[in-house]
Amino acid sequence: MIYITRRERFNAAHRLFRDDYTEEQNLEVFGKCSNPNWHGHNYELFVTIKGDIDAETGFLLNLKHLSKLIKDKVIEKLDHKNINIEVDFMKDNFASTEMLAMRIWEQLNLEIRALGAELHAVKLYESENNYVEYFG
Amino acid sequence: MIYITRRERFNAAHRLFRDDYTEEQNLEVFGKCSNPNWHGHNYELFVTIKGDIDAETGFLLNLKHLSKLIKDKVIEKLDHKNINIEVDFMKDNFASTEMLAMRIWEQLNLEIRALGAELHAVKLYESENNYVEYFG
Amino acid sequence: MIYITRRERFNAAHRLFRDDYTEEQNLEVFGKCSNPNWHGHNYELFVTIKGDIDAETGFLLNLKHLSKLIKDKVIEKLDHKNINIEVDFMKDNFASTEMLAMRIWEQLNLEIRALGAELHAVKLYESENNYVEYFG
Amino acid sequence: MIYITRRERFNAAHRLFRDDYTEEQNLEVFGKCSNPNWHGHNYELFVTIKGDIDAETGFLLNLKHLSKLIKDKVIEKLDHKNINIEVDFMKDNFASTEMLAMRIWEQLNLEIRALGAELHAVKLYESENNYVEYFG
Amino acid sequence: MIYITRRERFNAAHRLFRDDYTEEQNLEVFGKCSNPNWHGHNYELFVTIKGDIDAETGFLLNLKHLSKLIKDKVIEKLDHKNINIEVDFMKDNFASTEMLAMRIWEQLNLEIRALGAELHAVKLYESENNYVEYFG
Amino acid sequence: MIYITRRERFNAAHRLFRDDYTEEQNLEVFGKCSNPNWHGHNYELFVTIKGDIDAETGFLLNLKHLSKLIKDKVIEKLDHKNINIEVDFMKDNFASTEMLAMRIWEQLNLEIRALGAELHAVKLYESENNYVEYFG
Repeated sequence: MIYITRRERFNAAHRLFRDDYTEEQNLEVFGKCSNPNWHGHNYELFVTIKGDIDAETGFLLNLKHLSKLIKDKVIEKLDHKNINIEVDFMKDNFASTEMLAMRIWEQLNLEIRALGAELHAVKLYESENNYVEYFG
Repeated sequence: MIYITRRERFNAAHRLFRDDYTEEQNLEVFGKCSNPNWHGHNYELFVTIKGDIDAETGFLLNLKHLSKLIKDKVIEKLDHKNINIEVDFMKDNFASTEMLAMRIWEQLNLEIRALGAELHAVKLYESENNYVEYFG
Repeated sequence: MIYITRRERFNAAHRLFRDDYTEEQNLEVFGKCSNPNWHGHNYELFVTIKGDIDAETGFLLNLKHLSKLIKDKVIEKLDHKNINIEVDFMKDNFASTEMLAMRIWEQLNLEIRALGAELHAVKLYESENNYVEYFG
Repeated sequence: MIYITRRERFNAAHRLFRDDYTEEQNLEVFGKCSNPNWHGHNYELFVTIKGDIDAETGFLLNLKHLSKLIKDKVIEKLDHKNINIEVDFMKDNFASTEMLAMRIWEQLNLEIRALGAELHAVKLYESENNYVEYFG
Repeated sequence: MIYITRRERFNAAHRLFRDDYTEEQNLEVFGKCSNPNWHGHNYELFVTIKGDIDAETGFLLNLKHLSKLIKDKVIEKLDHKNINIEVDFMKDNFASTEMLAMRIWEQLNLEIRALGAELHAVKLYESENNYVEYFG
Repeated sequence: MIYITRRERFNAAHRLFRDDYTEEQNLEVFGKCSNPNWHGHNYELFVTIKGDIDAETGFLLNLKHLSKLIKDKVIEKLDHKNINIEVDFMKDNFASTEMLAMRIWEQLNLEIRALGAELHAVKLYESENNYVEYFG
């Protein structure tokens, strides 16, 4: 079994908050990440798949196909978007990096199986100091 | 003469657009950067100062003082903010990286002179693929 | 279950050697790392915790709390210090990256549990070419 | 148990193709990576070993010995070489990153055991966007 | 006046040698870079342009246009190619990083002027340890 | 005229202080960098030379020669050393990054001229957030 990882990037705006919190509560729990006027990040996404090498090609999976899938199902929906407002698969979710990584997993899991490999990990950097990993 | 550079970072939301353009015109000129719901970046700021070494300390300038100045005059105003709406020195400016670098220069120029050095360059990364430099 | 990693940094001096070795033996085993006048590094520390997402906040753990904990228990004790001489939790230990990673784990393990998450990994870079990982 | 990783680098030329494919088939399956005139990469190799700390030295393994082993068995054979033509352990293999990672594992596995540690992972970057991991 | 830099990347094979040298002379002067079976690199190209900000857009130049120009005139010709054999503007040139940077300058200089800006610098990384800069 | 830059690295211990200051004065001016028990860094050194391309080789200068020169005159003297105590060319100097960059320039300037090129810049990173440049 071999593991391959593909990096893709997107830039997006978001905000951490609860509707049922007062402005003060949001500030206390989420700090400056709760700014009602939004802030944003250059996110880095690492998608790791696993499986056996195809004896015909020497590939686990053609990375062009993996890259296209990630772009179609994830990057197109997130890049230069507002995560709280505009992303279908983030509707009714917190726009935290944790939730985003889990929802990105769900966007990709079955599609990658259909390509003949298995999704192993979604790793999502919000900044150079913070990242989240989800293994399903 | 010696040059010292200090890196600081901030995360912010912004949008590129003109009020007097239609949505279509904005999309044509500014592309997805004109998204009315905003997007954002992890900006990296490099401030370069120049001058002579202080014979008493071996420093051009105490970097703690430079770092504090950049934080007070620039980072505090930009970090986790909306550049178009919330930043006093960007009022009535395009929120492009070019304009932002020029306005950051103006925030720092006289203050650095007051500390006994000279501002040489402001370098601002919007992403790993794009950066702007301004030398006054 | 979700995993979150926080990066923190510290600069420190150290030396690899044994008291009961001659200078020659130390040089043979530890090479230039045994220099009696010390040398030093910019260490990069990655602390990975795991657990379930808090339904109230969408967080595994507030990263400000995790960052503060790492700073209080680890960074404050190591940054701009001599690892062999000045760090309480490294007393009577080799100042190797391996031992340092294990002792950092012990500094953090129960404290992270008290915050409601579990420590998964301590990853410590000594240079861009070498790093150590400890999983308990 | 502790894990240590050593990074080494090499530059090489390669080509992805099958002898029994036409030029058109190779282009369809392998894209521009099938260019008959070769292309190349700056590969980054991360070798992770695991084991217990030596009570005499505080090391898992002396990294100079690990680095020398990787250089002798892997880097010397690959650096500034043509992977398809000149590398003994890649004879009759696809020159894909997947196959290369697996063959590098085989070059190192027993040798690392002979040094008293265990090979845990071979991680091979072909570009900043793609890497392969193999765990045996 | 403001400066903007755009990064683009390409992978290519090359060889350093002289036709009129013996194999031994080539090895002596160019070392392992003279391998007759080629080797290759992940090149990183930084193109810096300068000029005044457009009062209509707040841009020096639309980076999409600059990126497209670099791709059309430089990247398409070099990516996944053999620099010695397949690149029209490198015909009869040494395939050194120095020569490559100078020829890339010539590919871009007038085209960038036609876009309304001025080419300031071409910076070309061959590896993380070596880069060349050309200012015309 | 073309510019080439070579990166080299070294790890060293140092301390910022004045003999004629009290411990309190040193702490006030130099902060934790004045720790009497030393601290240290992974320094990154970028040496930029300039000149014309050799019509015989296509090189400005053979980088192996430049790298060897930097190692002999600078890295060997600094790597795994105590900058305040053990480095001949830093005797009676502050161990600040500014002074170190200037002294490294002096170590290299005439030697590089003897190789047929001209030293353009010494750039020295003390950490990912701070670097110094000296142009003679």
